[in-house]
Amino acid sequence: MASSQSSQKEIVTAAILVIGDEILSGRTKDKNLVYMADRLNEIGIQLHEARIIPDMQEEIVEAVNACRAKYDYVFTTGGIGPTHDDITADSIAAAFNADIDFHPKAMEILTRHYEISGIEFNDARKRMARIPSGATLIENPVSKAPGFQKENVFVMAGVPIIMQAMFESIADRLHGGAKMLSRTLGASLPEGKIAARLGELQKKYPSVSMGSYPYFKQGDVGTNLVLRSIEEADLNAAFNELSDHLDSEGVVISETT
Amino acid sequence: MASSQSSQKEIVTAAILVIGDEILSGRTKDKNLVYMADRLNEIGIQLHEARIIPDMQEEIVEAVNACRAKYDYVFTTGGIGPTHDDITADSIAAAFNADIDFHPKAMEILTRHYEISGIEFNDARKRMARIPSGATLIENPVSKAPGFQKENVFVMAGVPIIMQAMFESIADRLHGGAKMLSRTLGASLPEGKIAARLGELQKKYPSVSMGSYPYFKQGDVGTNLVLRSIEEADLNAAFNELSDHLDSEGVVISETT
Repeated sequence: MASSQSSQKEIVTAAILVIGDEILSGRTKDKNLVYMADRLNEIGIQLHEARIIPDMQEEIVEAVNACRAKYDYVFTTGGIGPTHDDITADSIAAAFNADIDFHPKAMEILTRHYEISGIEFNDARKRMARIPSGATLIENPVSKAPGFQKENVFVMAGVPIIMQAMFESIADRLHGGAKMLSRTLGASLPEGKIAARLGELQKKYPSVSMGSYPYFKQGDVGTNLVLRSIEEADLNAAFNELSDHLDSEGVVISETT
Repeated sequence: MASSQSSQKEIVTAAILVIGDEILSGRTKDKNLVYMADRLNEIGIQLHEARIIPDMQEEIVEAVNACRAKYDYVFTTGGIGPTHDDITADSIAAAFNADIDFHPKAMEILTRHYEISGIEFNDARKRMARIPSGATLIENPVSKAPGFQKENVFVMAGVPIIMQAMFESIADRLHGGAKMLSRTLGASLPEGKIAARLGELQKKYPSVSMGSYPYFKQGDVGTNLVLRSIEEADLNAAFNELSDHLDSEGVVISETT
């Protein structure tokens, strides 16, 4: 059986919650999902779901609780700044039924930061030091106000440059499983023509997930066939069989990334 | 009270479900969310949630059932092509506990399309005519294979050019409510400085949702203050009060879109 080894490999899964009215209104384009999808993949964590939700505590609580029970990791972005609409920390505390208060280390970091900058450390800015009890801080090398980790939930900023820096500061804490490997075959044919054969191949190689993505470029119709698996041998065998089949049918093919 | 009229206006809400492993893997960037967010806004439908989910029937069923109960409209993109990984139609049928079979009108459209194109109308392509019982077709002016509407769920293609054409063909069927109006004030100050005043204004104008989005451009620190409301008079009053306040503090401001 092609998939005989699959069950021995560890699958680690994650969800991302993008918190912010500005994404749902179309005003701001999210740039964090693609970054996280790539980085999680490199670490061996499979992104299974992403949700974009509004700045509303009940929505955040519901999504966090649904996802933290279902996946190994949950990453949130957005809503941890100094203004009244930054309600992520309170919402996470509510989701965990945990207290929230000024975190001594976060206060120390911010006090020092504003001292050095000569900027007033006012009440609004102090809100950024409010962290649910039992959480660990996530370093923010860019603008100092920290994110935090509460159990399997990682709370990060929404501004992409800060989110990325925060993610890199926690990457070492994440435990990856089997890496999802991927090979893509570009074929100069409409997907309807390869569908039957691809379906047969999918049955033959259950450990390989086969996706078919048509494209239309300047009048050219083609299909990208994406094969993904945590089993390298199965992946290569399936890829070669598909490639040989298309080749024998005279289809122009090329491996793409 | 600033918000006295709010309760008389109709609020219409929606969720989008982006169905596709290729988005979660980071391979393909979703382009449909931003398009839909803008268009729904124009029609007077508020996008409250978006989920990106994998090509797995149980996940699609769960998300569809959660969202169709919660929102006025649900729009799905992706998974209605001819290949084995296109499982959206079957999943929608399962979510509604409905039968699924070849739809006469869809068969007619596709038969004619492939006749004209001189392309074989094979079994894989016939799959695209399988529609849950009780659903209405959504026209696909680009590549003919239709989407469908089942109660408040609209099922569309994932390829952006097709999704957009499908959306435009159903826009007339959608019932919009009060339109969310928006005004944005760019201010040359860090958000921590305006946070307290903004919080007070938010309390004074509960019908206006106030968002604060810091930006960092070439060493320049500023904040976009986004005010949104279905009440035009409240929106303008809040905007003017905020604008006057910042002006009196000597902050450089400009209205942006």
